[in-house]
Amino acid sequence: MHSLIDQSRNALACKTAINADGFGVAWYGEREAPCIYKDIRPAWSDANLRQIAHHVRARLFLAHVRASTGTATTQDNCHPFAVGPWSFMHNGQIGGYERIRKKLDAEIPDALYRHRVGNTDSEALFLIALSQGLQDDPVGGMVRAVAKAQRLAEQAGGLPAMRFAACWSNGHEIFAARYASDHLAPTLFYRTFDDGICIVSEPFDEVRDAWCEVPPGTAIRVTATGVDMLGLDLGLCPA
Amino acid sequence: MHSLIDQSRNALACKTAINADGFGVAWYGEREAPCIYKDIRPAWSDANLRQIAHHVRARLFLAHVRASTGTATTQDNCHPFAVGPWSFMHNGQIGGYERIRKKLDAEIPDALYRHRVGNTDSEALFLIALSQGLQDDPVGGMVRAVAKAQRLAEQAGGLPAMRFAACWSNGHEIFAARYASDHLAPTLFYRTFDDGICIVSEPFDEVRDAWCEVPPGTAIRVTATGVDMLGLDLGLCPA
Amino acid sequence: MHSLIDQSRNALACKTAINADGFGVAWYGEREAPCIYKDIRPAWSDANLRQIAHHVRARLFLAHVRASTGTATTQDNCHPFAVGPWSFMHNGQIGGYERIRKKLDAEIPDALYRHRVGNTDSEALFLIALSQGLQDDPVGGMVRAVAKAQRLAEQAGGLPAMRFAACWSNGHEIFAARYASDHLAPTLFYRTFDDGICIVSEPFDEVRDAWCEVPPGTAIRVTATGVDMLGLDLGLCPA
Amino acid sequence: MHSLIDQSRNALACKTAINADGFGVAWYGEREAPCIYKDIRPAWSDANLRQIAHHVRARLFLAHVRASTGTATTQDNCHPFAVGPWSFMHNGQIGGYERIRKKLDAEIPDALYRHRVGNTDSEALFLIALSQGLQDDPVGGMVRAVAKAQRLAEQAGGLPAMRFAACWSNGHEIFAARYASDHLAPTLFYRTFDDGICIVSEPFDEVRDAWCEVPPGTAIRVTATGVDMLGLDLGLCPA
Repeated sequence: MHSLIDQSRNALACKTAINADGFGVAWYGEREAPCIYKDIRPAWSDANLRQIAHHVRARLFLAHVRASTGTATTQDNCHPFAVGPWSFMHNGQIGGYERIRKKLDAEIPDALYRHRVGNTDSEALFLIALSQGLQDDPVGGMVRAVAKAQRLAEQAGGLPAMRFAACWSNGHEIFAARYASDHLAPTLFYRTFDDGICIVSEPFDEVRDAWCEVPPGTAIRVTATGVDMLGLDLGLCPA
Repeated sequence: MHSLIDQSRNALACKTAINADGFGVAWYGEREAPCIYKDIRPAWSDANLRQIAHHVRARLFLAHVRASTGTATTQDNCHPFAVGPWSFMHNGQIGGYERIRKKLDAEIPDALYRHRVGNTDSEALFLIALSQGLQDDPVGGMVRAVAKAQRLAEQAGGLPAMRFAACWSNGHEIFAARYASDHLAPTLFYRTFDDGICIVSEPFDEVRDAWCEVPPGTAIRVTATGVDMLGLDLGLCPA
Repeated sequence: MHSLIDQSRNALACKTAINADGFGVAWYGEREAPCIYKDIRPAWSDANLRQIAHHVRARLFLAHVRASTGTATTQDNCHPFAVGPWSFMHNGQIGGYERIRKKLDAEIPDALYRHRVGNTDSEALFLIALSQGLQDDPVGGMVRAVAKAQRLAEQAGGLPAMRFAACWSNGHEIFAARYASDHLAPTLFYRTFDDGICIVSEPFDEVRDAWCEVPPGTAIRVTATGVDMLGLDLGLCPA
Repeated sequence: MHSLIDQSRNALACKTAINADGFGVAWYGEREAPCIYKDIRPAWSDANLRQIAHHVRARLFLAHVRASTGTATTQDNCHPFAVGPWSFMHNGQIGGYERIRKKLDAEIPDALYRHRVGNTDSEALFLIALSQGLQDDPVGGMVRAVAKAQRLAEQAGGLPAMRFAACWSNGHEIFAARYASDHLAPTLFYRTFDDGICIVSEPFDEVRDAWCEVPPGTAIRVTATGVDMLGLDLGLCPA
């Protein structure tokens, strides 16, 4: 088991030149819920992050550096988002989000609305996925949320309606998926190391052959025993 | 005309011991829209605020130090809020806000929803007031927003349903009002100086007699020529 | 062993109304050096601190909330300070510090000067104590640093020359001391619980009898087996 | 006279991808001393900066985006630095600064030491320049400071000993200079517009011919009537 820093330094390093609109880390330690650390500073200048990454052990963690696609740089808008044991982070965007934001908010059930702390499309997707049964059907719940959002985007004429690469976890399994309503799904790769598996938006080392690209329209489930690949059926027609 | 600091230092000083959940200033200079400066640091330790208050001239300004009633300490949740030439700040709370937040959000029209950047009850009130004609009827628009919010709170059983002391401006006139659904409306005072009028939640000097208390259920309008007092008719029955 | 939050929430709560100029925590986990987390926000509004305190286990920790005595509210000026395995936090001040700051800086040896990241008297005291053999003689090294600083203050006419209540640790033992050149040494208390010992500037509960006051001019050493009390001999004459 | 944003947005934009370790602006308004606004966030995500730049008028301003060469990302370390009417900002570095930092600090006179709020080489250079008569001899004072620092760097074996591009002002005139102890002086350009003169580290538009490069080893003085060019004589031999 590596300490956080061994991997996240590299992971964080790969896109820092442009991903400087805040960062966040969710790590699973001894509790069921993850510990969340977020800040709006660039990750590389945050002394606290360096300390925590050097000292904290985690069996599983998500790390995100944000490049805003329009919403504000606030701590509440930084990924990962978490509700109970579930955490979620996302690269991508919903087409014409600003125009359908109120409709997306209306899709979040009352019981989950108090978890709506920021105003990003990503957080809305996560909360809608929870309302669609993410807990019991981690891929299906997410697919239904993405399909709902894409339909709203299409109705409002936002193009491309959906670009989505995301990673979510309950602390035991990690799920990740890649999809777009057009042909430009954000990239997603994974690599198996001796002591764990790493999922990234872009390979953080030069051993490109060691990384497996997740194909568009596909989800993966990472468990203690390996990686399963699952087709995504959104019941939607990519343009 | 004083520089900002001459008055705001005192204004800010009066409650800093507990109002340390961020601050904000909106000042009207040469443009129609106000200049907004907000931060989540305590006002007294913000070197930028000291600089700006020392250097900036304004014919009219609103300054707020926040003591959160539950929502997060983020820059987006700091008052004043502004849309176009209008700025708004608020002390008080809507009963059971967390339970009716989604319903309040649904009252904000699509065209204004993009201005919903934080998640406070105060910002929701302001945006609903704009949708109720605040621009043309500054007191009536606010009254209708407060009444709507109070009714939602009462339906959800939040008590006290409404406590409200607020100040809003278009850069030419300042409006302020004080109201509660019970008998504990947050305080509101104003005082006439040789070179201007000051509206505060609590007098910032010891000359208590110089300050006029705004009675509960009353609004004031401050113009270049003086202060008008207006009764508030919410069409609601205070408990 | 409690999680951090069980004790620090209370500890932090006691003076938050005025100690809002940043905070810091140093906890000892599996490494020799402590993990340091500092921020300039008030401790009570820091979502990251709440998360970390809820999730991190530590066998020993120092927690500090700062009320600045003049120097800036920056992350670098927040306590605790740390060099290698040693951490240090301080309440108090050196008389006329601003006038002797350059002389104090000159007392810090070249090899330690790179650890001078902020500009507080507290950090200077710690670095001078390290140069005076703190590692091998934890009380003697600190006494010599305090005596040096007091002499510089007296020569510059700063009064009171020294007020000092501090706590420092190598991760295995905690040292604390209380002293003043006049008769107003900052307070220091400790209390033995079933599962550990707590040293505080002010008792954080109402069971006042359970807390032992450290007398002025005294240091304590807390080890796994108990608390030793040691007289401080600064070779200086308190006024 | 443009508002700040008209020029600084472009100026700030040019290197934001890498200069994300804080920013600062010093503008001269109605007072003799400049108004300083600094923050550790990337300039592009700072809502306050956008507001201020849109609203504030200034006859003269300095704007800086920082890419740290080693010292911490803190508000105190952000440029410009200011003492009285003088402001200063700097690109470059002193060779082996960490090893000679204490010696540089010792060069700052007692009377100016209280202005030493951060720990950058840039701030030290500015304070030493003030001690070398910057106020009465703006170029000579700076040259003597740079020469002193270069000698200390050379004695300590830091290479390259000095790389320096800086801009400083008293609110009436702007001075800028470019120099290096080797052959890689940081770049410096200026351009005359109808309504003012702009000095930049890199041209912020594509009209490259419109920009005059300041030659290495040269200072410029910008006044209401134009630009004077002055040779720098450091009495030192560039390697």
